[in-house]
Amino acid sequence: MNRIAICVEYLGTHYCGWQRQIHCESVQANVEAALSNIAAQPISIQCAGRTDTGVHSVGQIAHFETSVERPLIAWVRGVNTKLPGDIRVSWAKSVDDEFHARFSAIARQYRYVIFNREVHSAVLHNRVTWEPAPLDVSKMNEAAQSLLGENDYASFRASACQASHAVREVQSIEVSRKGDMVFIDIQANAFLHHMVRNIAGTLIEIGKCKKSVEWVAELLLAKDRTIAAPTAPACGLYFVNAIYPEQFEIPRVSLNEILWQ
Amino acid sequence: MNRIAICVEYLGTHYCGWQRQIHCESVQANVEAALSNIAAQPISIQCAGRTDTGVHSVGQIAHFETSVERPLIAWVRGVNTKLPGDIRVSWAKSVDDEFHARFSAIARQYRYVIFNREVHSAVLHNRVTWEPAPLDVSKMNEAAQSLLGENDYASFRASACQASHAVREVQSIEVSRKGDMVFIDIQANAFLHHMVRNIAGTLIEIGKCKKSVEWVAELLLAKDRTIAAPTAPACGLYFVNAIYPEQFEIPRVSLNEILWQ
Repeated sequence: MNRIAICVEYLGTHYCGWQRQIHCESVQANVEAALSNIAAQPISIQCAGRTDTGVHSVGQIAHFETSVERPLIAWVRGVNTKLPGDIRVSWAKSVDDEFHARFSAIARQYRYVIFNREVHSAVLHNRVTWEPAPLDVSKMNEAAQSLLGENDYASFRASACQASHAVREVQSIEVSRKGDMVFIDIQANAFLHHMVRNIAGTLIEIGKCKKSVEWVAELLLAKDRTIAAPTAPACGLYFVNAIYPEQFEIPRVSLNEILWQ
Repeated sequence: MNRIAICVEYLGTHYCGWQRQIHCESVQANVEAALSNIAAQPISIQCAGRTDTGVHSVGQIAHFETSVERPLIAWVRGVNTKLPGDIRVSWAKSVDDEFHARFSAIARQYRYVIFNREVHSAVLHNRVTWEPAPLDVSKMNEAAQSLLGENDYASFRASACQASHAVREVQSIEVSRKGDMVFIDIQANAFLHHMVRNIAGTLIEIGKCKKSVEWVAELLLAKDRTIAAPTAPACGLYFVNAIYPEQFEIPRVSLNEILWQ
């Protein structure tokens, strides 16, 4: 069997998220259908990190196994001809049998994008979250640093989160501004359901000076979802990278290369 | 009567262009409905330059007259609450009775955007034109300079173009690259139907080295639409600015501020 890794870029707007579901259109089902078409045999894929309805990706990693032989370019160009325009395979690569898109990943990186201007942009509709109130980015960044390290993120998990515990390790978090764009870049070993969007919602409250910089640390200690801020909208969230041990030589997306930089 | 000028940003993807039509959804009809709602009286608008199906705008200017008194912010924030997210009014301004969005405009500026990478971007789906073959931007820019000045652009007008003659004045044209993005920025006193897209299609052929730099000058002389390149897709085209005499103090969009810069 050949094991192939692919990078999938998609706009989440018109999909019920990554994962295949019976009654709605998912990114996974579209990619599997396109791969199966090119392989002329059923193909199922595993991804690095499932994303919710409306969440986008510039660097989702997935892998699949197939007995058919195709030049790698067929898994990119051929597959892309079978996909809707809001889903693209950006590269394909042969990988060792020990590579697994989900289980080999040692970290994930997300970017949350806020358009911080009095009037929203039509061109950015559904691509970013809009916040008309001026955001104090230095306060947001200072507050965010309290999230670093291994912590119990129970205050930032969705009520529907099915993980067995809420301990994760946030390896880096940075809030920055470029013109009207505010970015929250966060990397962790793994994320809880809605974790990035709940952190973003909380940091936005601090950026608007409705809550103090210390609030994040208080929330973290409280381990109580009901006292944190509302979940920020899905449309501002981008899955940027799954990070693997060097040996697999999986390319990464640079934050300087992606849009809204 | 109060005369108000507004700036309208929109994504053309889901509209049959600017102009109100009976059997399809237009930008104009949406803006007029939202303004009429806020005014509680029917309002009709005039724009600086009608755009085709699928063409976007970051700086369309329109004006209307109304007998009702509203704070200017109501024509922005109030109207935006009545508009779909892919249409936004970015500002409103009281103007003299002599101001007319179309007839007072002395020039129009467009940007044509090409994403020049082997694989298209899902995030930029419908926002830019995709060209996988490497484009030689310096050749495109050199060729483009032949279009400067007052010329008969019959080779670059749509067969359906209803203008009485094809003489226009191209005041500036520049082809540039930033990373994978190639921009064609063009300003003229006025444009013929499909003129920018026909110029873009022609310059793309030159950028791909399928035609020589001299081809543009030959086409201009020939005054024959049938020999020029195919019309480039609508999704790459942005109406950027309508330019008015200084006295009207109409704000302009800076090319450095807009997306895909």
